[in-house]
Amino acid sequence: MKEEPNESENMADEQNVTIDPWGKALVEDYARLIKEFGMQEFDPKMFPEPNLQMRRGIDFGGQDLEHIARAIKEKRPFYCLSGIMPSSEKIHLGTETVVQNIRYFQDHGAKTYILIADVESQATRGVSLEEGKRRALEFHIPAYIALGMDIEKTYFYLQSENKTVSNIAAIASQKITENEFRAIYGSVHPSKVMSAFTQMGDILYPQYTEKMPGVIPVGIDQAPHIRMVRDVARRLKADYGFFLPSAIYGKYTNALDGSFKMSKSSAENAKLEIPEKDIDAIEKKINKALTGGRATKEEQRAKGGEIEKCMAYEYCKNHFIKDDKVLKQMHDECVGGKNLCGECKAKYAIPYAKQFYEDFNANFEKAKKQLGKIRFVQ
Amino acid sequence: MKEEPNESENMADEQNVTIDPWGKALVEDYARLIKEFGMQEFDPKMFPEPNLQMRRGIDFGGQDLEHIARAIKEKRPFYCLSGIMPSSEKIHLGTETVVQNIRYFQDHGAKTYILIADVESQATRGVSLEEGKRRALEFHIPAYIALGMDIEKTYFYLQSENKTVSNIAAIASQKITENEFRAIYGSVHPSKVMSAFTQMGDILYPQYTEKMPGVIPVGIDQAPHIRMVRDVARRLKADYGFFLPSAIYGKYTNALDGSFKMSKSSAENAKLEIPEKDIDAIEKKINKALTGGRATKEEQRAKGGEIEKCMAYEYCKNHFIKDDKVLKQMHDECVGGKNLCGECKAKYAIPYAKQFYEDFNANFEKAKKQLGKIRFVQ
Repeated sequence: MKEEPNESENMADEQNVTIDPWGKALVEDYARLIKEFGMQEFDPKMFPEPNLQMRRGIDFGGQDLEHIARAIKEKRPFYCLSGIMPSSEKIHLGTETVVQNIRYFQDHGAKTYILIADVESQATRGVSLEEGKRRALEFHIPAYIALGMDIEKTYFYLQSENKTVSNIAAIASQKITENEFRAIYGSVHPSKVMSAFTQMGDILYPQYTEKMPGVIPVGIDQAPHIRMVRDVARRLKADYGFFLPSAIYGKYTNALDGSFKMSKSSAENAKLEIPEKDIDAIEKKINKALTGGRATKEEQRAKGGEIEKCMAYEYCKNHFIKDDKVLKQMHDECVGGKNLCGECKAKYAIPYAKQFYEDFNANFEKAKKQLGKIRFVQ
Repeated sequence: MKEEPNESENMADEQNVTIDPWGKALVEDYARLIKEFGMQEFDPKMFPEPNLQMRRGIDFGGQDLEHIARAIKEKRPFYCLSGIMPSSEKIHLGTETVVQNIRYFQDHGAKTYILIADVESQATRGVSLEEGKRRALEFHIPAYIALGMDIEKTYFYLQSENKTVSNIAAIASQKITENEFRAIYGSVHPSKVMSAFTQMGDILYPQYTEKMPGVIPVGIDQAPHIRMVRDVARRLKADYGFFLPSAIYGKYTNALDGSFKMSKSSAENAKLEIPEKDIDAIEKKINKALTGGRATKEEQRAKGGEIEKCMAYEYCKNHFIKDDKVLKQMHDECVGGKNLCGECKAKYAIPYAKQFYEDFNANFEKAKKQLGKIRFVQ
C-alpha cells in the first residue's frame, strides 16, 4: 500500500516466485496473475471519464471495483486511501501512477486519506518520528500535490498519532492464523506481523467510524496485503460491519535497461525517481535506455521498431506523454519505421521527460505554498 | 504483567510444562525455576522495610532488583508499572499481592504507571473501548486503591490513547526473530505477536522519555514476557538507552481445594476473587477448603496439622492475616496440635477472610470518591 515497494528489498526472498509484498516478485504475465490471484480484470469502461492509467492499461486488475463504480454513479460516500513512507526524500516514479488514481477518485467523490507511515519508518529505517514528519511535510506531501493530488479533498494522518489504527490492528490480528499469515508473507517474523496488521488497520480505518466502501490504488506487489485485509474485513463483518476494501492494481515499470521492475537497487543509469533535479542527467539516462531497435538501420526502416521492448516508449506511455494523440504518433512513427531509436528519443522521450520533471519542479514549489491547507485527522 | 493471568486460559496448551504466560504452567519447584530461568532468588534484606509479601516468601524471585534497591537507597528516579485488563469486573485475589508491591515501591519513591489494556480487552474479549474504560474507572481503579495503591503517586493511561506504546512495539518487533518468539510463547499467532509487543511497549514506555530503571511486579507466569522485554531492551540499548526492566516475581496461590493455581476455571467453591460481596459464601468456601488435617482427631492433637498442605493457612499467609504475630499464632497452634482444622478455620481463616472482604468493600466505596485525583498520561 505504501508507495515505496523498493524500500524493503533486503527482506525479499529472491527465490520466491509468488507475489511478495516485500520483495521482487516475478510478475510478467498479468493475465495469469488475474486468474491465479482471483483478481478482477480491469475494464476502463466501468468508470466515467477513465484517466490515462485506466485507458492505457497501466491499471490492469482490481478487486470489487463495481462497488466503487456504483458509489460514483449514485454519488454515495466512498473513500480512497494511500500511504507515504517518509524514509527518504525520493519517491518511485511509479508513485505518479498511484497519485493519478488518487486524483481520479478524488474528482469522482472519494473522501481521501493519506497516512504517513512514520512509525514504520522509525521502526525499519531508524528515521525519528520528528524527521519522518518533517520529510512528509517538506517533500512527500508537496510532491503528491505537484503530481496531482487535491489537498483540499484529502485528510492526512500520522501513524504515530492515530490510535484507532492500532486498535483495529489488534482486532484484526485475532482473525488470521499463523499458517495463513505465513502462506501470504513467507514468514511470521514479528516485525512483518506488526507491519502487516498496522497496514490492515490503515486500510480499514476510514470505515471504523463511517461505514462505506473504499478503494486502495496500489502496485501489484501489494495484492497479498489486499487479499489478507479483505479476509479480515470479511471475518469482522458481523461485529464491525466493514466493507471488503476494493483495490485497483497498477503494473510495474521495468528499469530503463529493461531489467525487471525499476527500484532503488536498479543501476543508477537505469532508474528515474522523483525528483530528478539534474535535467541533463535525464537525457543521458534516456539515451542509454533499452529500445526495440533492429539490427540495422535498413531493417528498422523496413520493419519498424519492436516497440513492445522499448523502455523509452514504456516510460512515455506510463508517465511522460499525457496527450494520447502524441503518444499514438510516437507509436506509429516507431512501428512504421519512420524514426530510428535515436531520432525517436530526441523527438519524444527526451523532451517529454524533461518537461515532466521541469513541470514537477515548478509544481513542487507551488505546492509547498499549499501546505497551510493540510488537514490532519486522528 | 496484567493481573488476570487466568483470563486467557483458552489459549493455553495443557501439555506445556514450561512457563507459559497464557497458560497453566506447572510451577511447583520455585528453586528449580529460579535456576532454570536465570532469575535472581529474592532476598527481602535487599530492600528497606520489606513488606508482607517480601517477608513471607510470597515474592520468591526477581531480575536485577539491585538496581531498584540502589535507586531507593540513593533516592534516584525509578518506575513501577503494572496493568489492568478490564475484561470483567472481577480481579484475581493474587492481584492483592501485586498491589501491595506497587504500594511498597510507591512508598519508596517509584513513579508509578498503571496501564489499562482496553485495546487488548476489545481485541480478545470483544469489550468495547468505552466499556473497558468504564470498567477500569468504576471497578478496577477503585479496587486497586482499596487494596492499597496510592492514587496520588500514580499515572494511568489507556492503551487506546497511548501512541508511544505502539511506536515502541513496532521498534521492538524488529529485534526478536520468529524462532525466538516461538521458543518463548509456543506459537507465532499474529494475536500473540501483537499482544506481546504491545506489552513490551508498555513495559518500556516510562523509559522512552525519561531514562530510569523500572520494576514490574508480576506473577511467575509472566516471567517469559519479562525475559523477552529484557532481550529487546538490551538490543535497543545502543539506540534508545533503555535500562533492562527489573522484575519481582510472586508465587501462585493454589485453589482452595488444593488444585494447581486458582483461576477463573477453578471450581466455583474453590476460588475467591475480588470482590466477594456475599460474605456468608466466603465462610462456606473456606469451610470446604483443603487442610493438612490428620486421619484422626487423636493423631492431629498428637502430631499437629500438616500446615504446608493447608489452603486456609496459605490464604491467611498470602492475603488475610496482615499481622505477623497473629499468623505465627495460627501456625504454632496448628503444628502444635492445639486446634483441629474446623476450630482453626473458625478462629482464624473465616473471621480474617470476612474482615478482609468487609474492609475491601468499605475501602472500595471510599476509593470511588478519590477518582477525581486520577491523572491520565499519553
